Amino acid sequence: MKLKFPIVALLLEIITIILYAVFVVYDVTSESSSGHHGTKNSSDVVNQVALYPMFQDVHVMIFIGFGFLMTFLKRYGFSSVGINLLLAAFGLQWGLLLQNIWHMEDGKIRVSISSMINADFSTATVLISFGAVLGKTSPVQLLIMTLLEITTFCINEHIVVEFLGASDIGASMTIHAFGAYFGLAVARMLYRPGLRNGHNNEGSVYHSDMFAMIGTVYLWMFWPSFNSAIAEPGDAQLTAIINTYFSLAACALAAYATSSLVEKKGKLDMVHIQNATLAGGVAVGTCADMSIGPFGAMLIGLIAGIISTLGFKFLSPFLASHLGIQDTCGVHNLHGMPGILGGLAGIVAAGLGKKNDFSAGFQAAALGSSLGFALVGGAITGLILKLPFLGQPPDQNCFDDALYWEVPEEEETGESLTHTDHSKNKAEA
Amino acid sequence: MKLKFPIVALLLEIITIILYAVFVVYDVTSESSSGHHGTKNSSDVVNQVALYPMFQDVHVMIFIGFGFLMTFLKRYGFSSVGINLLLAAFGLQWGLLLQNIWHMEDGKIRVSISSMINADFSTATVLISFGAVLGKTSPVQLLIMTLLEITTFCINEHIVVEFLGASDIGASMTIHAFGAYFGLAVARMLYRPGLRNGHNNEGSVYHSDMFAMIGTVYLWMFWPSFNSAIAEPGDAQLTAIINTYFSLAACALAAYATSSLVEKKGKLDMVHIQNATLAGGVAVGTCADMSIGPFGAMLIGLIAGIISTLGFKFLSPFLASHLGIQDTCGVHNLHGMPGILGGLAGIVAAGLGKKNDFSAGFQAAALGSSLGFALVGGAITGLILKLPFLGQPPDQNCFDDALYWEVPEEEETGESLTHTDHSKNKAEA
Amino acid sequence: MKLKFPIVALLLEIITIILYAVFVVYDVTSESSSGHHGTKNSSDVVNQVALYPMFQDVHVMIFIGFGFLMTFLKRYGFSSVGINLLLAAFGLQWGLLLQNIWHMEDGKIRVSISSMINADFSTATVLISFGAVLGKTSPVQLLIMTLLEITTFCINEHIVVEFLGASDIGASMTIHAFGAYFGLAVARMLYRPGLRNGHNNEGSVYHSDMFAMIGTVYLWMFWPSFNSAIAEPGDAQLTAIINTYFSLAACALAAYATSSLVEKKGKLDMVHIQNATLAGGVAVGTCADMSIGPFGAMLIGLIAGIISTLGFKFLSPFLASHLGIQDTCGVHNLHGMPGILGGLAGIVAAGLGKKNDFSAGFQAAALGSSLGFALVGGAITGLILKLPFLGQPPDQNCFDDALYWEVPEEEETGESLTHTDHSKNKAEA
Repeated sequence: MKLKFPIVALLLEIITIILYAVFVVYDVTSESSSGHHGTKNSSDVVNQVALYPMFQDVHVMIFIGFGFLMTFLKRYGFSSVGINLLLAAFGLQWGLLLQNIWHMEDGKIRVSISSMINADFSTATVLISFGAVLGKTSPVQLLIMTLLEITTFCINEHIVVEFLGASDIGASMTIHAFGAYFGLAVARMLYRPGLRNGHNNEGSVYHSDMFAMIGTVYLWMFWPSFNSAIAEPGDAQLTAIINTYFSLAACALAAYATSSLVEKKGKLDMVHIQNATLAGGVAVGTCADMSIGPFGAMLIGLIAGIISTLGFKFLSPFLASHLGIQDTCGVHNLHGMPGILGGLAGIVAAGLGKKNDFSAGFQAAALGSSLGFALVGGAITGLILKLPFLGQPPDQNCFDDALYWEVPEEEETGESLTHTDHSKNKAEA
Repeated sequence: MKLKFPIVALLLEIITIILYAVFVVYDVTSESSSGHHGTKNSSDVVNQVALYPMFQDVHVMIFIGFGFLMTFLKRYGFSSVGINLLLAAFGLQWGLLLQNIWHMEDGKIRVSISSMINADFSTATVLISFGAVLGKTSPVQLLIMTLLEITTFCINEHIVVEFLGASDIGASMTIHAFGAYFGLAVARMLYRPGLRNGHNNEGSVYHSDMFAMIGTVYLWMFWPSFNSAIAEPGDAQLTAIINTYFSLAACALAAYATSSLVEKKGKLDMVHIQNATLAGGVAVGTCADMSIGPFGAMLIGLIAGIISTLGFKFLSPFLASHLGIQDTCGVHNLHGMPGILGGLAGIVAAGLGKKNDFSAGFQAAALGSSLGFALVGGAITGLILKLPFLGQPPDQNCFDDALYWEVPEEEETGESLTHTDHSKNKAEA
Repeated sequence: MKLKFPIVALLLEIITIILYAVFVVYDVTSESSSGHHGTKNSSDVVNQVALYPMFQDVHVMIFIGFGFLMTFLKRYGFSSVGINLLLAAFGLQWGLLLQNIWHMEDGKIRVSISSMINADFSTATVLISFGAVLGKTSPVQLLIMTLLEITTFCINEHIVVEFLGASDIGASMTIHAFGAYFGLAVARMLYRPGLRNGHNNEGSVYHSDMFAMIGTVYLWMFWPSFNSAIAEPGDAQLTAIINTYFSLAACALAAYATSSLVEKKGKLDMVHIQNATLAGGVAVGTCADMSIGPFGAMLIGLIAGIISTLGFKFLSPFLASHLGIQDTCGVHNLHGMPGILGGLAGIVAAGLGKKNDFSAGFQAAALGSSLGFALVGGAITGLILKLPFLGQPPDQNCFDDALYWEVPEEEETGESLTHTDHSKNKAEA
């Protein structure tokens, strides 16, 4: 029983290392002895390294941003930031392999800073889905989900970019909408009637909300890097930076205003601030490098902030009670709807000729493809994750680190923890 | 009543978007069809993007640095980091407009990475003033303050840079001294006799002090970026980085030593460490890009660390009890006095010819202008903020997130929170 | 008594400033009037500034990474992040002097971004050793240790690089193994029989473990910068980035798997996750810029993650109980063994010709030199630190911030803190 997780983790890692030994080399000047890659000169390599600061911004978003954003739960911080690290560390290795399998040279995948950025991107899909099922899945289930989701993502991304030739520079469709609906489909399959009325641990405490704000603020700050990292250097990249910067600024105002509007006594709700302030980054993704104008980006951000907050307030409870979709972090509101909004904005912008050589029709096809792969892939993955030997936790141990982690005793009395520990022991027995 | 904040926030955002639609365009190669801007070529754009990592450092200082530095209060962390995000998100949009209104081309403001850095800078003034009135002002008051302070800042900055031709690369005068004295003037206008003897919530707990250290350390690390981001590339920029690096290092030693010297039993005080260690970054700002020598920078840092710590220990209590200036975060010690020190150092350095073509006289005029605009602008702003419909919180609800935020129940009992909530309800009724 | 710390700190800073006044200048174009340095042109300076983002990554590792990694102790967070800042701020000034004393031009040390990176590196040795003695030493002792350790480090580094001509780009040997064994030798000298059975405060609470994860994740993310910052631009630097990225990813999987394997019921242990996930960055250091292949880097990371976790579980308790080495943070497992593994990997890689012009023999000599200087230097330093007037804290006050910091009262009752304060007063009397 206790051997399952280490065996799966080590096995996946060893298989990955073997595949890397066969297929993966550095994308450096001197690597090729055949002269075939003679076009790669040392200034290309220096240009690659110039991308490194943007890679690190994306890296921070993946590991600090997503990791800490999910630490809002009172007793699930270790898992949020810890399992986030585990899944992303495995996911980036797997993503880099699958994303590049389509364009190998001489049977080799050549790693550069760009491929590291794309590998980090591929893990974002998993971390979004992780948010939907947070607290209700075992590490083994999540490793399997990582494997399956990144595989599905790479197929869809290949179709969207290579076959449909669609533009999705900030990945509103291929990462955000995809990751959200994949996760929601998984969550639907893993529906737990026992959690219909909530769970004692499914809430925050003061300091867990503070930790989550670390994630929020880093995501908010570095989103311009996410949306521009792989844009064409020069005008397109600068445009993507500027559009995202302004979209997020407008979105923040909209999220604060809407949160206060829908809460009783005009108060602000931390859940909205932690999440809906970021919806502008998601929604401006597809057309980030298009000439939509700073005010266009701000409009997209404004709308995203409003619908995201309304989603948290009104739609999420409905999805949980009527459709059996228990979305722990509300990824539908942060990544799902804003991702679709981004896809739609991209269709309109392409139709208006805001980016040369892109058509509204293929943009729409790309959105459809992303949603289709997400829902079907997520549903199948959800079915697989129900296999009993993957160790899904029982209802009473959901949202509780103590099931998978050695948790220190409480500062004052340790009583509540000890209590939790007991119930867990029973559950495992 | 509850509609006031959302209406103000949305109104400001919508007005801003309209102004952007009229005035703001990307500073890219292809933007101009008139050929007028044909001098802008694609390598200029690439050079702009090379500034991006420094922009992100400044961004982190604004949103993580200032935001978390103010989370030291035991029950005001949500507001500190949350309202910080709100004000900065609005402020950067407003600042970018006003800073560039003086040099439009063809009636357009052209956004580049440099203007994003400057926009972020303009918000720093507001966040410094926010520190002076932290816990005693409503979000609506603070949005109005943001609007007025950034407007005043942009006028003073224009005078200092364009008319006086003064040098203030790290903005000791135009941001730090300005922001501090603006905030102190506001605080004086909003003087609360009821808080003369302190307030239950005006203190830290162990973990809130830890969160504040996140802000401190990020500000300390990235200050070289703040002081060099808009310096002339090459020697001047490198000099600004090096001077700030060493000034901060020396300042840290001075702050630790002085803190231990003035506290009983030689202990260290977290308030000093969180703040006074940063005074070297403020004080070296004006002459950061001047050839004052690494040891000159260290001397400035040493002095700044000492006077800042002494200010916290001796001057702040005096200002509160004798002058009616209740400075929650002690911005006078971190930004006020070190900002003036920076201005004075700049006068001396210019007098000694450490930077060509700058005169001691104009430097002194710049310092005077910054202080004057700050004090007058802050006093007027403070008077405006007293307007009753801006919703200033009553004394007993100061320093308490529960007034503006849904606050989760306490881990253990939730009792203290519930208690707070009751008193608040009365206050609002 | 209370004057000792401020006097030592100020004295060290003032001596440093005097030395800087005599020796240290900017490495800029215009500095030299003799024409001697005419080879330094403005594009060299621009290239220097291009290194700045990597410098900032290293800076974050030093001040946030090391600082927060050590905040896991329940009542020692102020000291961990605060004294970390103090030691690093002094250490970088001292390190920059000593590292460059060997290659002065015209009797001057010329500061550039590279020398700032190297200065930051030199402080890493001290922060590693700080981990071994964390909670059991006074600030004065630690300042003295900083002085002595950086001096020893600079001598060994000079021998390794200049005399032996060994390659150690990520400093597995000269920083990690050196820092660890230096710290362990100090810890051995400061052995406390009274702590044989542990100490009430030598453990974590839930949120202190969360703070520590901030440190872990930043170290994990930015380690590629650490290992590549001073690599040859181009292929070597890109290789160092890629190798470190993959080594850490594989190491994370190995650490999680091994932690679960050795803990009861297959749970994960935060101590392992916080530390052993990073061992891959240490171990790949020496051969980071060598053509070992991505899979080679992953293998090194995999092994490092396993031995590091096993070290925490089995070796550390043995060292404490049988050899009198009380290693608070387990630096032997994170820096010691993985550092030696890195040195050994470098010997093998050099032997296999993975980097031109480097010999296995000199690599082995470099490893031996680093260990020798560390053990002898650490032992001597430990003896010096036992001098009574350096104020080593008594056993009962170990791991307690209240000895050196004003600590706020507890949120709920303040009782436990007050209690601690009493016992401390007795101890100091």
